[in-house]
Amino acid sequence: MRLIHSINELRRTLSGVSAAFVPTMGNLHAGHLALVKQASRSARPVVVSIFVNPLQFGPGEDYARYPRTLEADCALLEPLGVDYVFVPTVEELYPEPQRFLVLPPLANELCGAHRPGHFAGVCTVVLKLFNIVQPRVAVFGKKDYQQLHLIRAMVREFNLPITILSGETVRDSDGLALSSRNGYLTPEERAEAPRLYRTLRALRERLLAGARDLATLEAEAVGSLAAHGWQVDYVSVRSQASLLAPEPRERALVALAAARLGTTRLIDNVEVELPEPGL
Amino acid sequence: MRLIHSINELRRTLSGVSAAFVPTMGNLHAGHLALVKQASRSARPVVVSIFVNPLQFGPGEDYARYPRTLEADCALLEPLGVDYVFVPTVEELYPEPQRFLVLPPLANELCGAHRPGHFAGVCTVVLKLFNIVQPRVAVFGKKDYQQLHLIRAMVREFNLPITILSGETVRDSDGLALSSRNGYLTPEERAEAPRLYRTLRALRERLLAGARDLATLEAEAVGSLAAHGWQVDYVSVRSQASLLAPEPRERALVALAAARLGTTRLIDNVEVELPEPGL
Repeated sequence: MRLIHSINELRRTLSGVSAAFVPTMGNLHAGHLALVKQASRSARPVVVSIFVNPLQFGPGEDYARYPRTLEADCALLEPLGVDYVFVPTVEELYPEPQRFLVLPPLANELCGAHRPGHFAGVCTVVLKLFNIVQPRVAVFGKKDYQQLHLIRAMVREFNLPITILSGETVRDSDGLALSSRNGYLTPEERAEAPRLYRTLRALRERLLAGARDLATLEAEAVGSLAAHGWQVDYVSVRSQASLLAPEPRERALVALAAARLGTTRLIDNVEVELPEPGL
Repeated sequence: MRLIHSINELRRTLSGVSAAFVPTMGNLHAGHLALVKQASRSARPVVVSIFVNPLQFGPGEDYARYPRTLEADCALLEPLGVDYVFVPTVEELYPEPQRFLVLPPLANELCGAHRPGHFAGVCTVVLKLFNIVQPRVAVFGKKDYQQLHLIRAMVREFNLPITILSGETVRDSDGLALSSRNGYLTPEERAEAPRLYRTLRALRERLLAGARDLATLEAEAVGSLAAHGWQVDYVSVRSQASLLAPEPRERALVALAAARLGTTRLIDNVEVELPEPGL
């Protein structure tokens, strides 16, 4: 496994080969490792990037305190047979202020409504990384559901010759979705945190049991979280295909939520496949 | 020379080869042909695209009447040894409404101020074409100076592995820059049209003779055009490097203009290299 810091060196190294690529912000956990294993089953060599992207953090968000744990990350990646770890500095990826941005749709939906500019920052850095690595395949986790949706749409609409694979969310035994931000939680918050997933699963059960009034279901979920000290950004049932409000009779849905415990913002989602006739 | 209409067919055909690429909107003239010759000297095979891109035309602009002359275009390209002419339909390039856009800088400068959304449309389609053709080299004309500047900047800021070459503006014997839009001019307008270039050359002479008050020089040029029936969008002296107002002592300048004769909007520019100490 080789650590590469420079764009030119990575380009020279990868010249002409079509890799499988997993972009990350580091502080790797079992969720990332599952994506890496999925990548290595689909193409070789495997390239993992580790870059905490300032462009996707808003003012007052956790860019400065986001955990940087390169040594531990490499120790996790090496046994998986990763070929290259691309670790650019901010100056390497943004040698001049980034003036060109990717403007994605759904910017005011879900997390976009609560993190202005976040998805423009994500899509911009992913486009840059795609152009540097030029992978054949790239893997993103379902935990960042809106991000995955947008990356797939970007690849399609910008005609990028890349196949996007998605990895299932990896969870702790109590159901909490693995996330680097879980490390911010106090022991009390950590004990409370699995309620986010439990709440979404309860919402799914209600849907599968025939409840169809989405506004009521969402309000109940918000109320249940708020009653336990969460500050809820949103709980929303959407179309898997569009991430917009589902159409009548639509069956492939996803319930998404973002909420804060103390200063830590957590997100999660569950897919819901309704039986006929759907909504 | 092979005409290709489908993205997939072009991809299959070019798989693994790094072409030289000239994107055009067709209705080719000697200016385009010079770019194609330049492309074929830099890499083979040579790919020319012909696509009138709806995304870069504003409401009320000339998208509908823009000349489509595919047969004549091919007759001009064949003798130059062009390998592939890529002619996608609007549906092929935009099978769904384009929601992802490239948001370029300088959007409110020069032509950007007068054509809202134009450069977002240009950069978006060029990014798509780049991702489809994946050329090693692409050639753009200096006549569309702001476009050339933005494409270069986009390639740099999005880390596209493409070298951008620029072609000098080709002019008629009376100095008028060749442009598909010259075909819209009445005989009287055509006789008047070379004044745009003459005005910019006169401005350059004033600068080279020591004049330094850019606002006055620009106002004089606007006045001279307006006195001959032009509706002037702008005449502006800018930094070649930034396309913004030049810094003190800057020496590499460019005078740019856009103005309408009747319903036809013409643009032109001249580069000015000041002797020491510059502005």
